[in-house]
Amino acid sequence: MKLSELSTETGVSTASLKYYLRESLLAPGEPVTRTQSEYGPAHVERVRLIRALVESGGLSLAQVRRVIDALDSPTVPRHELLGVAQEALMDSERFEADADWTAVATEFVERRGWRIEDGEVLLPQLGAQLKALADTCDVGGRDTVERWADAAEIVAASDLDTLTEDDAQALRTAIVGTVLSDKVLQTLRRLAQQNRTAQLYEAAKRSDQ
Amino acid sequence: MKLSELSTETGVSTASLKYYLRESLLAPGEPVTRTQSEYGPAHVERVRLIRALVESGGLSLAQVRRVIDALDSPTVPRHELLGVAQEALMDSERFEADADWTAVATEFVERRGWRIEDGEVLLPQLGAQLKALADTCDVGGRDTVERWADAAEIVAASDLDTLTEDDAQALRTAIVGTVLSDKVLQTLRRLAQQNRTAQLYEAAKRSDQ
Repeated sequence: MKLSELSTETGVSTASLKYYLRESLLAPGEPVTRTQSEYGPAHVERVRLIRALVESGGLSLAQVRRVIDALDSPTVPRHELLGVAQEALMDSERFEADADWTAVATEFVERRGWRIEDGEVLLPQLGAQLKALADTCDVGGRDTVERWADAAEIVAASDLDTLTEDDAQALRTAIVGTVLSDKVLQTLRRLAQQNRTAQLYEAAKRSDQ
Repeated sequence: MKLSELSTETGVSTASLKYYLRESLLAPGEPVTRTQSEYGPAHVERVRLIRALVESGGLSLAQVRRVIDALDSPTVPRHELLGVAQEALMDSERFEADADWTAVATEFVERRGWRIEDGEVLLPQLGAQLKALADTCDVGGRDTVERWADAAEIVAASDLDTLTEDDAQALRTAIVGTVLSDKVLQTLRRLAQQNRTAQLYEAAKRSDQ
């Protein structure tokens, strides 16, 4: 198909497609004439992936590039899949490590009994995030973080179950699934907050009667 | 304090502070001379808030503006706090509603027995996110979403508990807490994935012996 048809098929403007081509996020098509190339199903799939990562996942183009580089790299052993996914998604520029809070995060994880392979980035990141919460709104005491960790365990068990089936697309599933389902979890949290608010409101009304 | 001292106190460059002032994210200081103003503790607090939302929360400046407008608005009744927070954080431009997937999301929430006050935005958003997952990596079947919803209920119950105490800063806590703790939850998920991977690996080794 022509570039204009790839645009129709994917719902992405030709201007954006040309940008993806220029930035090598999308492989060039097969040249047909001096000014025209032919694009195939692999291009459609790649464009849909970029679009999902940007629009639904909220990734920057720099993050999309890291994800795509990881996907284009040679096969990764199953037990390293989530590690590669995590690395591709890391915002290491986004936080400033704080030694005291890294220690808080490390101690939390140890008390929880979690075995962490590679905490050099994630533990300082968790510490910086807990510091930001404590500094700005006094949220994130030990009890709260314990409850969040309970929730995280449920999600992680589900994540690993998704990956145990034999799947040629496993890395793609690990990366894309993680990015997009982070967003689904945020939306479910908002919905569950509304439900919980309604429940508490009903309970308060009953106890007033 | 002078602008340069505000910069030292908060760790935000004077260029960024001038930008916040120009964009009215930060109130002007008290004029002292024709070229100098005096800034106080309220400025320090506001700059720390903006910084946390941008750096730790990953919000765009447009989102920061919505959050700040909500915070600067008159007192909001307790039961509307999370609604105002949700509205301030909404990325309505980020997704395209799909009627079939909105129906899937609505049916899911109903089956779950969740009472949703105001699903006009959140249900199409959930639908679009589930569609993106299904389209790109075949993740997000009913069982998986049920497990995510279990996790979301734990987090939402914790969120509401945080807000029940009497607190003049409740809206701030609702908004900032939600933004920053979304990030904490993402990090805890990554850590829990590592722990779960280690557990499964151990179990596989034992069953090989």
